[in-house]
This record gives sequence, C-alpha cells and structure tokens, in this order.
Amino acid sequence: MSLDAVLQTLDDTQDAAIERLFELLRIPSVSTDPAHKEDSLRAAHWVAATLRELGAEADVRPTPGQPMVVGHAPGDASKPHLLFYGHYDVQPVDPLSLWKRDPFDPAVEDTANGKVIRARGANDDKGQFMTFLEACRAWKAVHGALPCRLSFFFEGEEESGSPSLVPFMQDNAAELTADIALISDTSMFDANTPAITTMLRGLLGEELTITGPSRDLHSGSYGGAVMNPARMLARIIAGLHDETGRITVPGFYDGVDDLSDALRGQWDALGFDADAFLGEVGLSQPAGETGRTALEMVWARPTCEVNGIWSGYTGDGFKTVLPSTASAKISFRLVGAQDPVAIRKAFRSYVQQSLPPDCTVSFKDHGCSGASVMSTENPLFEKARLALSDEWPHPAAFIGAGGSIPIAGHFKEILGMDAMLVGFGQDDDGLHSPNEKYDLRSFQKGARSWARILDALSG
Amino acid sequence: MSLDAVLQTLDDTQDAAIERLFELLRIPSVSTDPAHKEDSLRAAHWVAATLRELGAEADVRPTPGQPMVVGHAPGDASKPHLLFYGHYDVQPVDPLSLWKRDPFDPAVEDTANGKVIRARGANDDKGQFMTFLEACRAWKAVHGALPCRLSFFFEGEEESGSPSLVPFMQDNAAELTADIALISDTSMFDANTPAITTMLRGLLGEELTITGPSRDLHSGSYGGAVMNPARMLARIIAGLHDETGRITVPGFYDGVDDLSDALRGQWDALGFDADAFLGEVGLSQPAGETGRTALEMVWARPTCEVNGIWSGYTGDGFKTVLPSTASAKISFRLVGAQDPVAIRKAFRSYVQQSLPPDCTVSFKDHGCSGASVMSTENPLFEKARLALSDEWPHPAAFIGAGGSIPIAGHFKEILGMDAMLVGFGQDDDGLHSPNEKYDLRSFQKGARSWARILDALSG
Repeated sequence: MSLDAVLQTLDDTQDAAIERLFELLRIPSVSTDPAHKEDSLRAAHWVAATLRELGAEADVRPTPGQPMVVGHAPGDASKPHLLFYGHYDVQPVDPLSLWKRDPFDPAVEDTANGKVIRARGANDDKGQFMTFLEACRAWKAVHGALPCRLSFFFEGEEESGSPSLVPFMQDNAAELTADIALISDTSMFDANTPAITTMLRGLLGEELTITGPSRDLHSGSYGGAVMNPARMLARIIAGLHDETGRITVPGFYDGVDDLSDALRGQWDALGFDADAFLGEVGLSQPAGETGRTALEMVWARPTCEVNGIWSGYTGDGFKTVLPSTASAKISFRLVGAQDPVAIRKAFRSYVQQSLPPDCTVSFKDHGCSGASVMSTENPLFEKARLALSDEWPHPAAFIGAGGSIPIAGHFKEILGMDAMLVGFGQDDDGLHSPNEKYDLRSFQKGARSWARILDALSG
Repeated sequence: MSLDAVLQTLDDTQDAAIERLFELLRIPSVSTDPAHKEDSLRAAHWVAATLRELGAEADVRPTPGQPMVVGHAPGDASKPHLLFYGHYDVQPVDPLSLWKRDPFDPAVEDTANGKVIRARGANDDKGQFMTFLEACRAWKAVHGALPCRLSFFFEGEEESGSPSLVPFMQDNAAELTADIALISDTSMFDANTPAITTMLRGLLGEELTITGPSRDLHSGSYGGAVMNPARMLARIIAGLHDETGRITVPGFYDGVDDLSDALRGQWDALGFDADAFLGEVGLSQPAGETGRTALEMVWARPTCEVNGIWSGYTGDGFKTVLPSTASAKISFRLVGAQDPVAIRKAFRSYVQQSLPPDCTVSFKDHGCSGASVMSTENPLFEKARLALSDEWPHPAAFIGAGGSIPIAGHFKEILGMDAMLVGFGQDDDGLHSPNEKYDLRSFQKGARSWARILDALSG
C-alpha cells in the first residue's frame, strides 16, 4: 500500500510542511505594486528551489513583468504527463489597519471553527499550491521519485491581470503541453464536500477617469455653474444596472444562456444554503438580478462591480473642493460565450455617450478573459473525483465558481489541453480581504487529497 | 493730506510688507489636519505679535480646537469703533504633486498676467488680511496711532468648519462688539472693479459611509449575490439632482427666492463674462439648473456638490475587491432663508430611504451655516464704496459671492452688528487648489484700498 505510506509521511511531517509554507508566506510578493518587485523575484526563486528538491529541473524565466517558474520532473512515458500550475503572487493588503496581525507574519491561530493559517496568501494561492508540492515531497520521500512525468508552471502576475502569461505560453507552447493541467486555486463546495470546479466566470477590468474642470476648484466660487465629475461618475455607475439588477450596457447579455434543467437539478441537489452564505458576511438578501438564486448569481450570471472609486478630498475633516477628476475601477464577471472585447467596447461607448459636452474620459485596460467551461468527458476527471471522495466525509462534486481563473481557458485555447481545478478553500477564507486565512485542515487534508489524486491518475 | 502720506509709506515699504507676509505663509497652519496643530499655534502667536506692533493689546486665547487671537487698539470715542476679522488657517495642500513649488515656500513669480505671490494661503486668508494689517502699520508709521478705535479678531478654524467660533463669540460678546465688522476674504468683481460683497451663500457639510457586506470580499466569489456599497452610493449621489439640475432632497428649495428684478438688473449691468469664467477652467457650458445664468447659479442659487468620494482599491493596478464600505463628503451651498438644520435632516432621510434593507449608513456632521444677506442701508457701506472707487480703474460694486463666510451671519445674529466684506482676490487665484496665488497688485493696491477705507470711515 504505497499510497498509505505517502499519507502516513504527510501526517508525520506536518510541522515541517507548515514551516515551509510560512517561509513562502513571509515573502510579500504583491504583484500589482512596483515596490514589491524584488519580493516577487525572491518568491519565484523560492519556488524554483522547492521544485529542485522534488527532483525537477527548474528555473526562473524573466518576462516584461514578474518572472515565470518552469520545472520538469521525468517519469514513466506510459503514464499521463501532468502539468501543475500555481501563482506565487498575492493581493495587496490594504486596508492594513483592519488586519489583526502583520499579513506577512504567518501564524497558526485557534478559532471557533478550528485551527487556521493566517496570512496574505495563506489560501490564494500559496497555501493551495503548497498542498500539491507537499504531496509530491512525501511521494518522493517514500518512493525516491514522483509517480509520473510532472511539469510545473508558476506565474507571479495572476493578481494583476497576467499581462505576460499568454505571450509566454505561446512562446513556450511545446514545453508547457502535457496530458492535463492541474490547478489548485478554487474552493470546496463546503467544509466536508470536496469539489472539482468545471465552470469559471471570465473577467474584464476597466479603469476610467472623468475630467470636468481643468483644475480643482473652490466649491463656493464655482459650485452650481461647473460640472462636478464625481457627480457625473456617480450617474454613470448608477446607470450600469436597471431596477431589476440587470446590466444596461448594450449587448452585454449576448452569449449568456440560462442554466440547463440538468445542471440546475444537480446544483439544487447540493443544498446550497444561501442564507448562511450571505449571513456569514452580514447580509440577508441576494442583491443581483431578481428571480435568480444566489448560487446561480455567483456561478452562472455575469456581473458589473465597482472595485474602487475616488475623487476629491478623502482625508480627515472637510475640504470644499470641486474636484477636477473622478476615477473608478470597474470589473465585469463574464459567463458562457460573452465576448470580453465586444463588452469593453460597448462599455466605453456607453460611458462616452453619457458624458455632457464639457466632460472628457480616459480609460485604462486592466485585462480580460472569457468564461471557461471544462469538459468532464476526460476520464481523468472521474478518477480524481473518486480519489477526492476517499479523503473527505462527503463525496466530491462538479461545481461552478464565481471567480475567474483565465489560465484554465488558456490551457485549452493555446495548448489544447483540459484543466482540472481542485482546491480546498472555504467561503470564509477572506480572499483579497484583510485577515485572509486557510484552514489547517484544508492544508493538511489537501495535501493528502493530492497524494490520492496523483495515485489515481498515475495508477 | 495725511492719507497721501500713508499711501506713500505703503508704496515705499512694499518689500518689507512682502517679507512679513512670507514669514506668515511659511507657517503650514492647516487647521483640518491634527499633524499641524503646533503650526496653528505658531501662526496665532505670529498674528498676536503683529497686532502688538500696530499698538494693540493682543493675546492668544485657547479653545477646544485652534486658538483665537483678539486685540484692541484705543481710539477716539467719537469715531466709529471698527472690528477686523480674519482667519490664519489654510486649506490642506493635497494633491501635493500638482504644486509647481513647495506650498509653504512662498515666492513672487512672474506670470503672463503680472507678478503673483504663490503659496498656500497667499490669498485665503493670509494675503487678504495682511492688506488690512499693512494699511494699519503704515497709518501708525505716519500718525503714531491708528485712525480710530480698532479691535481685531482672528480664528484658526475657518477652513475646518469653525467649531469653536460661535461658543467663543457668545462667551465674549461684549468684548467683540463694535460698530461694524470688516472682513477681507472675498474677491473683486474683476481685475479692475473692486467690490463689497453683500450676499454670501451658506454651507452645510455632510459625510456619509454606506456599509454593505461586513468585510471586503472577493468580487468573484460573491459578486452578483451581494450588494456593492459603492454602487449604492453612486445611485444615491446620482439621485440628488434631477434631469434639469435641480436638487431632489424634499423641501430643499424652501426659502429660496428668485432674484428681484432690481437686483437682476444691477447684476446684468456688471457685464459678467460667463464664457471667460468657464473658459478659464476649461469648460464651455454652465452645468447647473437649466434656465439660470452662470452668475445667478454661483451667487444666488443653492447647490449640492460631491467634495470627496472613496471606496475599495484606489492604488496602482487592479484589485477585484467587492468593498465593504463606500464614503462621500457632500456639501450644500445655501441661499436666502434655507434652513441648514432642516436640510440636513431631509438629506439624511433621503439617504436612509434610498438604502436596500441590507445596507446601513452612518453620517458625520461637518458643520453648517445659513446664507448671509448684508444690509447696505448702513451709511458706512457707501463711504467704503466711494473710497474703494478712488483706488481702482472702475467704480466699486455691491456683488454676491458663491462662497460661504459664516462669520458674517454670526456678527449679525450674535453681536447685532453689520459686516462689510472687502477683498481683493481674483477668480483665478486657485483657492483650495494647488498653486494658490494672490496677485501682487491685489496685495499692494489692497493695502492702499484699506488705507482709503480707514480714512473714509474715520473721517
């Protein structure tokens, strides 16, 4: 029972595994912030060194942005060739004042729901991808080598739009192609139900700045006669949704299909608790399109969200300024066959047409990707689902997810291979929020789960 | 011709006068920012020391906020007793990056329109009130004493809502009462037409924070099902104006009268150039209520402006956060008999009623004051108007102003005395903006103007 020995090794080396994860979590690899460029490089080298410990040849490859890490471990040519993808960058930490501890000083904390690892990146994606690397490490410790041919591919720009990813994949397509890609950047259905995510929303990021008067003005000397760009921006944002919660950008819903009865039936059977989902974040009512369930809104409906807005004086006290500019960061989550390029164009046209003659607007493109729908025809999916089911109290499910992992689509489009998303996050992990955490149980049973999946896929 | 000697002295001591103003401008007395508390105290002591040089007994009086400065110089009991008011605090300087020089390192600069004094406070109010103090200094140099009994009253919280002002005036009413108050914190009608401002708008400052989910969320994991407070704030702000530019808060226009035909005639005769006024700030169209002239919008109509708005991630790059809170600073300019207390209540009620069940709102009160309309029946007004007309190319006018100087109303309500507002600012001085300036001509001819007014009022 070689799998049992690997699982036993994982159980016996938990403290060392946590210390390895903490080493990585201490590196503040915030990709969107140029001040952390050196930290990103440090994280990349840390990952490459770890891959070498697993028996892979690995190196750090420069890009115009943050570097890639690529590694290859040899294996039996008769077994599937697997490629594992992860990202070593993390989200910014602001507002820092809301963190209960230094986000880059990780610790295991006791909570009402058990022990958690607390740090920026504890889940997304450092904690998640380390479950896979720890499974590999234990496998190698028991067997002296990995179970099959394995390639590794890490980027450091996932949290900032992945500008270097597609060119790098295109330039290195042959090297990066395997039989299937494995990704650990998603959540379980609930704490006892593991999941393989087979539907992911796309993402379109826009930034706009509206300019009214050519400089900041005194709101007494000019107020009333001069267009306030913050008021105009508010009007534009308010106009993006109608009274039923539908998005008003012309053509936005082209390519959005209603759920099939079959899929709706599967999802209904999951017994998703919308009240608990909303209640956990202090809310009681789904806020999206009328007539849709909360689960459908998050997994299968497109959105438009304000991710940031700023104008005028935002410090303490009061300043009677009539601002010259007002800006917002706005993102759209996309589903089905929605075309991000067409939607960006329609959005910009909507904004332009909403402006009075005296206001101007400039846009910044923060990347885009369409939605991904995985094919579960590939028999490796069912093997993995059964392996996952062996580890957890409830059987594993094929589910949707509201987030966007554009790489899944890129693997299909650029490299022609399926991607399988298996992650151990929980809804309350606080991804992208202060006090991000990863359940210690997710980290430890996640590594055991990957050992089981490696065994199943290479068996 | 004793007035001529005073004017000659002002002309002969211009360099020393500029150096005195620069000393004051170098003190960063930003009242709204607690970090500058010591600077405010320093500015107060600087003003008190200057008053003593003019022959006044003067001292710095503590308040719960920034201190007051009060001074008294004796004079002939048969002549009017004048009280001069000014404020030694200044606006914040952000965005600092837009300043062409350190805002607290004043200099005289050559520009296409002549020499200007560049610094935060160059106009508002340090440069303005120093025109009066320099006139007093020259008068004393020529005559050995001031022309009449003069009291001085300076506050240091004018740019942050004047929280200590009314209690201080109530507690010291007898000491602060004179025959008339003089204030230099307003503008000329244009570069060649001096003005006495007889209509001022009131001001009501509000800050609101809308809370949706109890913490920042990942816009993928929650987007669609959860109310975004930035979207809600945008809807509330967008709803504050209707399509004709009128403000929708119920009862807002109670107490707002249309211009009398007489006043409209006087203002029409001024030949205000709305195209130039808007063109100077890069605009071409009045943005307020349809059917009103730009001058009417600024002098005689109430407004609602967003002075600041913030939510979510506002740094470089992109962060797919669904924010927990969204905030705005909003101010209303008030005219006629509008009741600030009733309007604050109606505004808060409008916001509360606009919120969906899951959102909450908190408010912060940033002070309020009603509009002021001065009585020009007092014969001192006409004496001052004629004196001003002697100094400048065009005769002086009685005008309105869009800004708010609550002290004018307080003098009337608390102390029962009229206030006369005579200032030498220009529309392009950049009050509350980066690169604030004061024309050197305003500073020098302003001091000469006050010498003439002192002569006329005490003659």
